[in-house]
Amino acid sequence: MSKSVTGPEIERLIQLLAKLPGLGPRSARRAALHLIKKKDQLLSPLAAAMGEALEKVRLCETCGNVDTFSPCTICSDPRRDRSIIVVVEDVSDLWALERAAVINATYHVLGGVLSPLDGIGPEDLAIASMVERVKGADSAVREIIIAVNATVEGQTTAHYITDQLVGTDIKITRLAHGVPVGGELDYLDEGTLVAAIKSRSRF
Amino acid sequence: MSKSVTGPEIERLIQLLAKLPGLGPRSARRAALHLIKKKDQLLSPLAAAMGEALEKVRLCETCGNVDTFSPCTICSDPRRDRSIIVVVEDVSDLWALERAAVINATYHVLGGVLSPLDGIGPEDLAIASMVERVKGADSAVREIIIAVNATVEGQTTAHYITDQLVGTDIKITRLAHGVPVGGELDYLDEGTLVAAIKSRSRF
Repeated sequence: MSKSVTGPEIERLIQLLAKLPGLGPRSARRAALHLIKKKDQLLSPLAAAMGEALEKVRLCETCGNVDTFSPCTICSDPRRDRSIIVVVEDVSDLWALERAAVINATYHVLGGVLSPLDGIGPEDLAIASMVERVKGADSAVREIIIAVNATVEGQTTAHYITDQLVGTDIKITRLAHGVPVGGELDYLDEGTLVAAIKSRSRF
Repeated sequence: MSKSVTGPEIERLIQLLAKLPGLGPRSARRAALHLIKKKDQLLSPLAAAMGEALEKVRLCETCGNVDTFSPCTICSDPRRDRSIIVVVEDVSDLWALERAAVINATYHVLGGVLSPLDGIGPEDLAIASMVERVKGADSAVREIIIAVNATVEGQTTAHYITDQLVGTDIKITRLAHGVPVGGELDYLDEGTLVAAIKSRSRF
């Protein structure tokens, strides 16, 4: 039906835009029209930016961050504390922690979590390279902060990583559980409330 | 802050994606990561589709639809009823009506509505070209359906268009007002309810 409205090139653009997270078929159509209307201000620079990303983007060989060079901006920053590695599931988690500007450490992106049901084992994740980084001869690592999601798979992965580092004197920590800042108790699950009560601190 | 996380090329891609309607700064970041992860399946074809759109997309010289050739797919379709022109504000309205597959007519995109406060007068809209289409020597037009939005500006524009066609025997109609299908009365404004009662029909 919509095939007859406009040319196949534009339909293809809409279909591809609809594959972006956050855009559905309807908003992809709106986005495509917006792009076409703002040809010079938006479509042209965006096409160029995508071409450039396509050409230059790579994964950091050290930590797995997405960047245009390897080692990435973070790994090659001399002001970063190399004694701490924050282990995350995904690049998006790394970026989220960086946005919060909470720690001046380095990172290690696992690229997922252990999930036997989905056939994802340790060899599918960047676990071996992490252990190597930690145990390496020139390693300055003192602490591993396991910042995986608080899901069953995340916790399984955390335990697996801990097992791999048995026998080293690396301090292994995990993120605190509790009530999100600004969160309402009424909307929280019981597990979170239990954790928040157990880890309560003096006011 | 986020400057230090990744390269400027990726930041630029994120900033441009954030300008798309429906994507905010956070979802643009997610979309950019998604694109980078699916380099071959998504980023590459999308960059190509944008390049192609950039090169080929144009406005239909007859109706103002967005297409890759002019006259557009609709205007050059011999099965379309040329006696009816549906006048819309924007290409997105044309596409919405086409998705509903409600009428096999031709269209005329005004490119906006009259808005003295924003400095938008009749000369800024495709009104003269519409009148020309309607009054032209080879015109087959019998009916104009004014399908502008039900806003004050839309209605002002509708009245202006009607004035331009005084003296012709063109039938001028507008969309019905009433309760949206699936809509709940409780959430509707009074104007809509008044219109729905006034235009009630026999059950």
